[in-house]
Amino acid sequence: MEQAIGVFDSGVGGLTVAREIMRQLPYESLIYFGDTARVPYGNKSAETVIRFSKQIVRFLMTKNVKAIVVACNTASALALSSLQEEFDVPIIGVIEPGAVAAVKSTVSKNIGVIATEATVKSGSYNKCLRILDPKITVVSKACPLFVPLVEEGLLEDRITDDVIQRYLHELKDYQVDALILGCTHYPLLRNAIGRYMGEEVKLVNPAYETAKALKALLYERSMLNEDTSVSPHHAYFVSDGVDNFIKFADNVLPADVKMTSLVNIESY
Amino acid sequence: MEQAIGVFDSGVGGLTVAREIMRQLPYESLIYFGDTARVPYGNKSAETVIRFSKQIVRFLMTKNVKAIVVACNTASALALSSLQEEFDVPIIGVIEPGAVAAVKSTVSKNIGVIATEATVKSGSYNKCLRILDPKITVVSKACPLFVPLVEEGLLEDRITDDVIQRYLHELKDYQVDALILGCTHYPLLRNAIGRYMGEEVKLVNPAYETAKALKALLYERSMLNEDTSVSPHHAYFVSDGVDNFIKFADNVLPADVKMTSLVNIESY
Repeated sequence: MEQAIGVFDSGVGGLTVAREIMRQLPYESLIYFGDTARVPYGNKSAETVIRFSKQIVRFLMTKNVKAIVVACNTASALALSSLQEEFDVPIIGVIEPGAVAAVKSTVSKNIGVIATEATVKSGSYNKCLRILDPKITVVSKACPLFVPLVEEGLLEDRITDDVIQRYLHELKDYQVDALILGCTHYPLLRNAIGRYMGEEVKLVNPAYETAKALKALLYERSMLNEDTSVSPHHAYFVSDGVDNFIKFADNVLPADVKMTSLVNIESY
Repeated sequence: MEQAIGVFDSGVGGLTVAREIMRQLPYESLIYFGDTARVPYGNKSAETVIRFSKQIVRFLMTKNVKAIVVACNTASALALSSLQEEFDVPIIGVIEPGAVAAVKSTVSKNIGVIATEATVKSGSYNKCLRILDPKITVVSKACPLFVPLVEEGLLEDRITDDVIQRYLHELKDYQVDALILGCTHYPLLRNAIGRYMGEEVKLVNPAYETAKALKALLYERSMLNEDTSVSPHHAYFVSDGVDNFIKFADNVLPADVKMTSLVNIESY
């Protein structure tokens, strides 16, 4: 099936998921939407995140996508089941793939989850992890300062190390041996977080696992693009700030970002 | 005139302006709108901030307000002139009152401005200060971590002191003697900022100056409410998270916040 895969996020963070999909599914075309006019979602209510997510899926459906990846942890946590109920296209989120990988990796059965306030409050990772293995203990922590620190470029900085220590010392007390980086920005702090948590703690990046899950889903349903002679076509849409988006995307993605268009998402 | 005054902000920060208006104009009714579904505005484009602000003014006009205060620095910087052109009601922002107070206070003629990225980039404070006194040197600095630090409650904290030092040391080098706190959240860091900048630097809070300017405007145009026998009526509207808003507002405002309603602002 030559139709594209739709990928969306509250902003630019989901590009790390898009990058993994491009790596693992190099013949698939992508339509990416970033809701840069209304970013962030992480401190907003479920009702609002569901409403915004439905508008985005309606927009992606106009592009005739064959499947949709909710690349935003908050939207996956709060809106995935509502989207799956309403729309007739396979839709996957980042929570379940991340949880599966963490359960595979843990020995102590103590798993840490760091995410936005809305994701932590939703309990979605907890529920998913407990279904996979009821013996697991989950320790969750909202880390609202991580996204602004990443956006300020303070990836290696004393201030960031201080904030990491402040947020994560509880997780150390619980002796977690797997830590889910439950927000698309957090993998950019992987080195600093890894240094603090220590080598024995496996850091799980749901982006990688989600691309793997998408590949399995498309394969099972015979929806993979089989024409490998034509290069895939990637298109990008945002609700604000095309230039800023292109600058960021060019740093994250393996290829140059050419086509980025502005969408009035509120009208969908 | 018994009609209410409309006050709006990207979120809850503008309540500090509403509080000053309540103190200085105790007989005036207020209609407050906080765009909590799309907060923050400080890293968004002028086009988007103008579009959002126009939707909000259209909503406030349905409440028959006699004047509007743009309590958000970013919206004042990017959208005020567009709003004044389009709507037939007096509209004031926070930039000019803040600039007037800073010019009155400075002796060295070196004024610092700290604000969001969008406000700094707009150059609005610069323009306004230079019109008031062409001899003034303005040193501006965007401080994107201040809002999340305030929202994490780290008002008195080593991490906050570190971030303040990082952002403000340049302003110290320029020997500013007046510093405009150009974002509604920043006055909550007044103690920590004052400690770092030193007693000789006057911290200017545009909220106080804006309420004064509003009072002068209503007086000049004979628009003050003259019936002082009835208590004013304050109503609050948000685009997301009514409960969170009430919790925050009850801490900021002198009276209990009873009436808060949800508005689908995208439909205006």
